[in-house]
Amino acid sequence: MHVREYKAEIIGVGTELLLGNTVNTDAQDVSLLLSKLGINVYFHTVVGDNPTRLKEAVEIAKIRADIIITTGGLGPTYDDLTKQTLAEAFGKKLIFHEDIAHKIRDFFANRIPAIEMTENNLQQAQLPEGCIIFENELGTAPGCAFEAEGKHVIMLPGPPRECRSMLKICAEPYLKALSQAEIHSHNIHIFGLGESAVEEKLIDLMETLNNPSLAPYAKDGEVMLRLTAKASSRQDAQDLMLPVLQKIQNVLGNIVYGVDTDSLENTVFHLLKERGLTLAVAESCTGGLLSKRLTDVPGISRVFMGSVVAYSAHAKTALLDVPQDLISDNNAVSREVALAMAQGVRHKFNADIGIGITGIAGPETDSSGQSPGTIFIALCSNDHTYCRSPHLFHDRERIRIGGASHALDMIRRLLTDLPVE
Amino acid sequence: MHVREYKAEIIGVGTELLLGNTVNTDAQDVSLLLSKLGINVYFHTVVGDNPTRLKEAVEIAKIRADIIITTGGLGPTYDDLTKQTLAEAFGKKLIFHEDIAHKIRDFFANRIPAIEMTENNLQQAQLPEGCIIFENELGTAPGCAFEAEGKHVIMLPGPPRECRSMLKICAEPYLKALSQAEIHSHNIHIFGLGESAVEEKLIDLMETLNNPSLAPYAKDGEVMLRLTAKASSRQDAQDLMLPVLQKIQNVLGNIVYGVDTDSLENTVFHLLKERGLTLAVAESCTGGLLSKRLTDVPGISRVFMGSVVAYSAHAKTALLDVPQDLISDNNAVSREVALAMAQGVRHKFNADIGIGITGIAGPETDSSGQSPGTIFIALCSNDHTYCRSPHLFHDRERIRIGGASHALDMIRRLLTDLPVE
Repeated sequence: MHVREYKAEIIGVGTELLLGNTVNTDAQDVSLLLSKLGINVYFHTVVGDNPTRLKEAVEIAKIRADIIITTGGLGPTYDDLTKQTLAEAFGKKLIFHEDIAHKIRDFFANRIPAIEMTENNLQQAQLPEGCIIFENELGTAPGCAFEAEGKHVIMLPGPPRECRSMLKICAEPYLKALSQAEIHSHNIHIFGLGESAVEEKLIDLMETLNNPSLAPYAKDGEVMLRLTAKASSRQDAQDLMLPVLQKIQNVLGNIVYGVDTDSLENTVFHLLKERGLTLAVAESCTGGLLSKRLTDVPGISRVFMGSVVAYSAHAKTALLDVPQDLISDNNAVSREVALAMAQGVRHKFNADIGIGITGIAGPETDSSGQSPGTIFIALCSNDHTYCRSPHLFHDRERIRIGGASHALDMIRRLLTDLPVE
Repeated sequence: MHVREYKAEIIGVGTELLLGNTVNTDAQDVSLLLSKLGINVYFHTVVGDNPTRLKEAVEIAKIRADIIITTGGLGPTYDDLTKQTLAEAFGKKLIFHEDIAHKIRDFFANRIPAIEMTENNLQQAQLPEGCIIFENELGTAPGCAFEAEGKHVIMLPGPPRECRSMLKICAEPYLKALSQAEIHSHNIHIFGLGESAVEEKLIDLMETLNNPSLAPYAKDGEVMLRLTAKASSRQDAQDLMLPVLQKIQNVLGNIVYGVDTDSLENTVFHLLKERGLTLAVAESCTGGLLSKRLTDVPGISRVFMGSVVAYSAHAKTALLDVPQDLISDNNAVSREVALAMAQGVRHKFNADIGIGITGIAGPETDSSGQSPGTIFIALCSNDHTYCRSPHLFHDRERIRIGGASHALDMIRRLLTDLPVE
């Protein structure tokens, strides 16, 4: 396999990054794509909305990279100077595109209520001569790509959603055409074991792997393993990965909740849909987070009936029929109350599966003396009830995320005939 | 005021950053501290665990910065090369510190269960000659600072918790001693106008400002302006900012929902608490997101009674007493249903204020032909009802965030006697 080894540099443009007001997720998103495509990233640079220093950064990147990707500075305001600066650095003029200006005017005119477009917005219609225009599906500032002085230059918008969308729709095909290697990956999603414990189980395997390679990372209480192979065809890449994937699944067993899936909530959605079952949720300490995560999934209304966020004792009795006595006898944060919430919400929404979550998210210890991280997660179906009480460490946010994830994991396990508790 | 203007560069070291496996939160944390201390950050650089390229990055930083701060590459493994490389770049030797080696050995011996220390861990006891040692409260790798060739060099560990802790305990006092200026900021939070429209209103002001400076940025449908002043005392900084802050508030009026507040949900929490009022929420298309955002605020249980996520027509009638006829006559996504949801949830939870949200989050157009972004947000209090129907563009996530933010803005306006719709 003979493939040109491209070197890339990512230049983030924006004073807000240098002030620490935002974190540079664009660099991460671009890096993930490039690494998937087998293009080496050797440097990230971040520079403010300052044309002199941006020019300096570009001059340095021209020496050490074949592909220069900028993020940010494409917007309508006077300090958005990326296109001007990059065009100048490569001796190109900016050309005004009437069709883009038209789209920008339309964007404002079609808003309800219509917003008057300020003239500065039209600078977004200026693009370097001879470039390929990258349409922005989520905003008004287009991106672009051009080749000059033997370098490929790609400019992407700064807002992370716009950057991510343009990366996928426009930059990925452009970059794929440069690289002749096929890079394919499988993402292995794990819930129920920490990153170092997963690594411990796989250390012998990881140390011997080269192609495919295996990289773990942890996020929001989950672990993901990315298995990546580089080959001259998709089939060859798959052939390299398959035996390793099987080995990993054998070692890890049923803590792997999915391969190449999006999330626990997505996995649960598909399982419920396949089995024709419906779900309703009663949340206390998670405060709507589980419902929010479920409804992040388009189409979930087919299986998700709804939820009650019962943040007060009154709400637990009035909306979920949890007996007042049960709460006073056991404490609002107890196995008994979680189970009663699950049963109550299942009944109220006429659903097949009910979930009840009650706990202390903190940061304060509650009046009964239970400390943050105490949590009970109950599941009730037509013929079974289950309750988990993991001790969740860390802060309010992590406790809430952990509680919601445990609930999703319990549903997944119920629907795939695995032990639930 | 005569203050030396320091220029800083932050160099992140770690191949995981270039692969996109982690996002560079260390750069953000260091930037936030430097900006608080009035030290200008002109560049961030990220480089892999590669001594040649790290050296290249350091050589460039030596030219353009007075303070070089590295994060990462201080650990025990063979590819942790930051100290060696920086020491070499500044012509310094590494010195072995027996007391640090002792602490590292202790760290392993005292773990439960005890872990055998591998010899490579002792390279963490090697530090550049003449440096100030920064103790690591959360790990084994110490950081350090030294001055050479007129530059200040600071090395911090990569794991975000360790970096953050060392920044606060060791780097902040070290850097404070360098800088004699006081930097203070006000954050002005805006809902109801886009970034370019805000800027248009303030452009004359922004162009004349130098100290204090004013920087806008947009996130999740909101705009924040940061006003920052540099002076020799806190009082002087405040005196510089006050007239500008007043001018901004005069120009923008009641779309400013708070100064130095956290979020709309926090503002609403404080208003409800002050007025002794309670809130309940009925969500359809936002699917729990409004409840989740409210319950992100610690202590919210004093004012937030709970919510119903009514994702099905059945749930709207069974849990919120929305008449079946009303839904069939008007469509589930209508002003009438939003109002009935608000009234129903207010009644059910016995709350002072009820919110009802119904809309199409997409990506699909609903069966009645209404397109994504159509949304009705109703508020009902003891004596009034209101309904907003902004047309929200963009995708599922932004429609949901926008819907929740509009609801919060309506509550804020109700409680501060402003027009609500």
